[in-house]
Amino acid sequence: MTNLFKIRPLAINDYDKGYLNLLSQLTTVGEINKDKYEENFNKLPECHKLFIIEDITKNTIVSIGSLIIETKFIHNCGKVGHIEDIVVDRNWRGKGLGKMMINYLSKLSDELECYKCILNCSNDLIEFYKKCNFNNSGYEMSLYH
Amino acid sequence: MTNLFKIRPLAINDYDKGYLNLLSQLTTVGEINKDKYEENFNKLPECHKLFIIEDITKNTIVSIGSLIIETKFIHNCGKVGHIEDIVVDRNWRGKGLGKMMINYLSKLSDELECYKCILNCSNDLIEFYKKCNFNNSGYEMSLYH
Repeated sequence: MTNLFKIRPLAINDYDKGYLNLLSQLTTVGEINKDKYEENFNKLPECHKLFIIEDITKNTIVSIGSLIIETKFIHNCGKVGHIEDIVVDRNWRGKGLGKMMINYLSKLSDELECYKCILNCSNDLIEFYKKCNFNNSGYEMSLYH
Repeated sequence: MTNLFKIRPLAINDYDKGYLNLLSQLTTVGEINKDKYEENFNKLPECHKLFIIEDITKNTIVSIGSLIIETKFIHNCGKVGHIEDIVVDRNWRGKGLGKMMINYLSKLSDELECYKCILNCSNDLIEFYKKCNFNNSGYEMSLYH
């Protein structure tokens, strides 16, 4: 059987399809029950857009990613797309799903009239993002509270 | 006369105090009239917070900065503060106003329960941000549309 992949916005009922399990392959998620998931889902503002790639032959989520649309004043009240929290299920890596997600989000940011799309990554992912047409343009600085 | 500096949220009537002129020291702003400024100001979602430092002895804006609060699912539905578009008027550089703005925004992100605060910068600003307690944690990748 071939797998069929579909990219779509995260839905409120994706809790049961393993969204948080997949997210935990990126970093610590913590104990989030269904009520808390739904509460957080409903708090997301319009400018925070979460997407998943679903294997529709198996009803499972195989990749996730976020796009935040920032409205600025610079560049004639321009907008910037920020890509965050990209994960491909470790059982599905190396099959182009990460590239499918990144291409989708960067294309969407273009359609939403962003003048650029940015993301931060570790050194070992620079080559992957270059293949997705991104270029290294600066350094990420962080302060943990 | 000594100058008195006050940090506060950007207001809809700051157009006349030179907000966009100062922003144009960062990059291209373009032709934005008062109506367009007000329209864009009113479009800003609650999670996009813009601040200014005002010289209240002269009623002028001397520094600006933004903080975007991102709601995530990771880290127990945690939040991340994204600092953007920091400018200090070129006539006022070297007087600690940049540090005042960064410290204010990072403290605010802590008060708003962000588990971290991040920003992107060029190589020549890494040392400045280290003095503001930030550490280099990755690379910025960008795609211009």
